[in-house]
Amino acid sequence: MEPIKPYKKDFSYSYALGAFPTYELLRKCPEQALGVYIHSAYTEREELAALCQELRVPVLSGDKTIARVSDKENVFVVGVFRKYERRLVHGAPHLMLVNPSNMGNLGTILRTCLAMGIHDAALIRPAVDAFHPKAVRASMGALFSVRVQYFDSFADYAAEYAEDCGAAGGDKRRMFPFMLTGKTQLTAEECPKPECYTLIFGNEAAGLPEEYAAYGESLLIPQSDEVDSLNLTIAVGIGTYLFAGRGGNGKKTEKDRKSS
Amino acid sequence: MEPIKPYKKDFSYSYALGAFPTYELLRKCPEQALGVYIHSAYTEREELAALCQELRVPVLSGDKTIARVSDKENVFVVGVFRKYERRLVHGAPHLMLVNPSNMGNLGTILRTCLAMGIHDAALIRPAVDAFHPKAVRASMGALFSVRVQYFDSFADYAAEYAEDCGAAGGDKRRMFPFMLTGKTQLTAEECPKPECYTLIFGNEAAGLPEEYAAYGESLLIPQSDEVDSLNLTIAVGIGTYLFAGRGGNGKKTEKDRKSS
Repeated sequence: MEPIKPYKKDFSYSYALGAFPTYELLRKCPEQALGVYIHSAYTEREELAALCQELRVPVLSGDKTIARVSDKENVFVVGVFRKYERRLVHGAPHLMLVNPSNMGNLGTILRTCLAMGIHDAALIRPAVDAFHPKAVRASMGALFSVRVQYFDSFADYAAEYAEDCGAAGGDKRRMFPFMLTGKTQLTAEECPKPECYTLIFGNEAAGLPEEYAAYGESLLIPQSDEVDSLNLTIAVGIGTYLFAGRGGNGKKTEKDRKSS
Repeated sequence: MEPIKPYKKDFSYSYALGAFPTYELLRKCPEQALGVYIHSAYTEREELAALCQELRVPVLSGDKTIARVSDKENVFVVGVFRKYERRLVHGAPHLMLVNPSNMGNLGTILRTCLAMGIHDAALIRPAVDAFHPKAVRASMGALFSVRVQYFDSFADYAAEYAEDCGAAGGDKRRMFPFMLTGKTQLTAEECPKPECYTLIFGNEAAGLPEEYAAYGESLLIPQSDEVDSLNLTIAVGIGTYLFAGRGGNGKKTEKDRKSS
């Protein structure tokens, strides 16, 4: 493998910075792993090198290279991986982010989705690069377990996925835009529990454009008027917890019943 | 007012970076405001200057000073304020953070508390500086509406506040440590709704020390085993939403009933 450089968006590869995200890469997407740099001062080299060997992923050295690509962070392991495209699963719960602009937030949100059992995320452009090392690191490697697909518009997404549940014989997909002007206050007691749905959140600063109110059943997370709004990541945390997590109103899906 | 310098923890003053946090300073803690720097390129100078004049807070100039203290961020307004000490309100719901280490997280958490109606936060040392400009900015000025009090230990906090509710004739304060080893899964349906409680969260990386399990009724937010844990800010968001927000199980407190 040729020497790696500080990440740019047009690269065909990117980096998982840190041991934890690199282990996630190796466990969840080993077929995309191109190599793993291990710093000479890393104390748990053996275990990691053994996993790489098992997966036939090259183990590489280069403390300076690690420092150069990791942007001052205290990083001892860098997993290099090929960027890839994935498509969302039809009929599954989806998260949609419209114009997300902060890589750290995107990573945190992907990690939260995974914690709540959502494995599919639609991003409406313009949107930050989910493969940027900062996003990968903030996700703690959850990126490798969540399918991320970009769309140019809501219409493009809807053309492909709006009817995907009904077609399978189940209920139609229900769309829930989260807005400060949402029609319904989202309480745990009254949280809908559809099998197939999309939770839609807007940009960190601007929220969702008003037209999204017409795209589904708009929801508002009740909040004090002492703040202008909740932080985006917090809103996604509460929404996914209630809809997808086990923390909601106690009604379990068929899948939950089978697995419990 | 003498010229200001990049913030250090031992300063007797700090900064609200940005117009929004500065407005919060002026509206919520005008008595602590020492002056407001307004950049020559700021387009909404008049409104802000008028509020300063009304509050008798000096309006200052100095584009270089603004650039120097704002650490590369795109900031046009800097509110300078005297640091102050506050004590938690007895009998009120409290949030407790044990050894928080990230200023951005602390700010986001204070903003979330305010959104959910919690106005008192106990920080157990070692803990980051809530007055650091980064924390103030991440809080979007919520710092000025939430009472923050530091303690050297849980015991110090408990000595002062553990019995504060019972003493007022109500129920005793209930403590809820959030832990991955929590005894009870926190679902919205079964979320306790005490009048007087403390929600306790641990450090970003380490979580709560095991001894906290004995300090109260430990809770676990249900989450998939595909992640190691939820992000601290997300966990606080879900916990405060269920306990303090209007999103919980629909039971309203006496105060809620009066105000609705």
